[in-house]
Amino acid sequence: MPNESEIISLIRKRARKSERVVVGIGDDAAVIKASGASDLIACSDLSVEGVHFRIEWSDPRLIGIKSLAVSLSDIAAMGAEARFAMISVALPESLSSEFIDQLFQGFFSIADASGVLIVGGDTSTSPDKLFIDTAVIGESPGGQAVTRAGARARDLVYVTGMLGASALGLSLLEQGYRLNGETEDSPEARARREAMMKHLRPEPLLEAGKAIGEAGIATAMIDISDGLSTDLWHILEESGCGAIIQARAIPIAESVVLLSPDKAFMLALHGGEEYELLFTSPFDFRAKVEELSKALSIPITLIGEITRGEDLELERDGVFELVPPSGYQHFG
Amino acid sequence: MPNESEIISLIRKRARKSERVVVGIGDDAAVIKASGASDLIACSDLSVEGVHFRIEWSDPRLIGIKSLAVSLSDIAAMGAEARFAMISVALPESLSSEFIDQLFQGFFSIADASGVLIVGGDTSTSPDKLFIDTAVIGESPGGQAVTRAGARARDLVYVTGMLGASALGLSLLEQGYRLNGETEDSPEARARREAMMKHLRPEPLLEAGKAIGEAGIATAMIDISDGLSTDLWHILEESGCGAIIQARAIPIAESVVLLSPDKAFMLALHGGEEYELLFTSPFDFRAKVEELSKALSIPITLIGEITRGEDLELERDGVFELVPPSGYQHFG
Repeated sequence: MPNESEIISLIRKRARKSERVVVGIGDDAAVIKASGASDLIACSDLSVEGVHFRIEWSDPRLIGIKSLAVSLSDIAAMGAEARFAMISVALPESLSSEFIDQLFQGFFSIADASGVLIVGGDTSTSPDKLFIDTAVIGESPGGQAVTRAGARARDLVYVTGMLGASALGLSLLEQGYRLNGETEDSPEARARREAMMKHLRPEPLLEAGKAIGEAGIATAMIDISDGLSTDLWHILEESGCGAIIQARAIPIAESVVLLSPDKAFMLALHGGEEYELLFTSPFDFRAKVEELSKALSIPITLIGEITRGEDLELERDGVFELVPPSGYQHFG
Repeated sequence: MPNESEIISLIRKRARKSERVVVGIGDDAAVIKASGASDLIACSDLSVEGVHFRIEWSDPRLIGIKSLAVSLSDIAAMGAEARFAMISVALPESLSSEFIDQLFQGFFSIADASGVLIVGGDTSTSPDKLFIDTAVIGESPGGQAVTRAGARARDLVYVTGMLGASALGLSLLEQGYRLNGETEDSPEARARREAMMKHLRPEPLLEAGKAIGEAGIATAMIDISDGLSTDLWHILEESGCGAIIQARAIPIAESVVLLSPDKAFMLALHGGEEYELLFTSPFDFRAKVEELSKALSIPITLIGEITRGEDLELERDGVFELVPPSGYQHFG
């Protein structure tokens, strides 16, 4: 394993330059030029081997990509733009230089693709497991950030994308399927690849999040990390209201319908790590939401409505069912 | 062990409010109001059980304090003011609620004392060891941050405080001494307590760092985390110059002279984790540096001079000795 200063010098060489980063990696701290009137948006996320990922299920590049994607998705869910990242990595001695190199390739590839500059971080040895902590700083025009707390009765509830595939992908990985094992060209093999990719390489919706923030159409927003039901509960608790969602409206990923028809609905309703955006928007903005969906070329589906109550209800063919706050953390 | 949402709700209750923090802990990300013309100063630091600390050597409150202190010290070394922190903690299941509570008490006590707001972070279980990553965001008036790269020939080299005690404290802990075992009131017991405290509870020099930044007297600055010799090398490498330091000028902590007279000089020269500030300043600012030392009531000692060369030389009674870059990481 390369030592800490070798790793830092490697990272330093790779880091992109920018006029705003006066001092990047290699000093006590990064120095970033003031941006004027923008609010700062800041978050951090841990990715722990054996808790959030398994080395044998993925490859180091995807592990790097996903661990940063999770924080970028949080910035997207504030309707903000991601700008700067700090990445701290505790590396077990057993990891090869090749592994570490690919892990950092992952960090840099998603940072570059997202317009994010890696400005700092820390490295250390780890006695046993690989630990990654990603801290991301974003910006949003003053007062424009979308929290979880602004939903009001009669707002409509929307979700981006198609749900359930990440949880299915996790369950396939647990059953022993692997990305590189799916070489066959059948609809099932393609669906398995798709589901595992959704789990191992989620796409943070930075463009959509920023567009929703700029359009001013969302009263509350969250990214789906714990599952649609749990994350909607987060919005309801913070906003002090209830919701009714339409079971038949929930968009289910094709791979899930194909591979797991019996559990498809539950996977879409409760499955975590989707990194899709869930937001509420005033009734009058329906046309704007539809326009945005077209402009972004992503599905944005109306799934329900915010109520004055304090329950989350699921309606199917006129029958209502309570969905309790589950405290659900990770699927599987 | 409390679950993640219990921990987050505990932290959320404790977090101080501020006009600048529009959204604190509990949303996807924190929202911080723009500050106008200030540059952002950002850094993060890992503290890993078994690498950076041992649970049996300290107590959870001190572990919390030190892990955040390390990042605060980096901000101080930029001549900046620390403002916001995010703390990510991966907690082994074996830790008690009491332990976790005290750990967070430590984070909050040093944050409060430093005027720093904890605005976010993440928690997770850990398969084995306790991992802490602290990310701190500071501010400094545009263009005023002090990097490692500005030292010029004929600048003088200064260090705050008295050196060697942290490395001695670490060595005492390794020998089996403990803070709570030093109840005896002898000069030796007091010295051992002092040395172990310097190691287990370093004081980030935020006030001094900010004052040095504001006074505009430092051309380069770093905090002593790897040891005076190694950290001076960092300045020399980044600034592209050499230095001569006076062996007899290096300020050695009294506890080190008392307990370890033979090794005292080497401990002061090479011992890490001091979190004192090492800086270079133009010759003409000598009087200003002395004034600042008085105003801050901390020793700031002149230990040498920057040269046009590319070596670090140690002078003792007219004899010069080269101090090579050691790649020294942690003492002991």
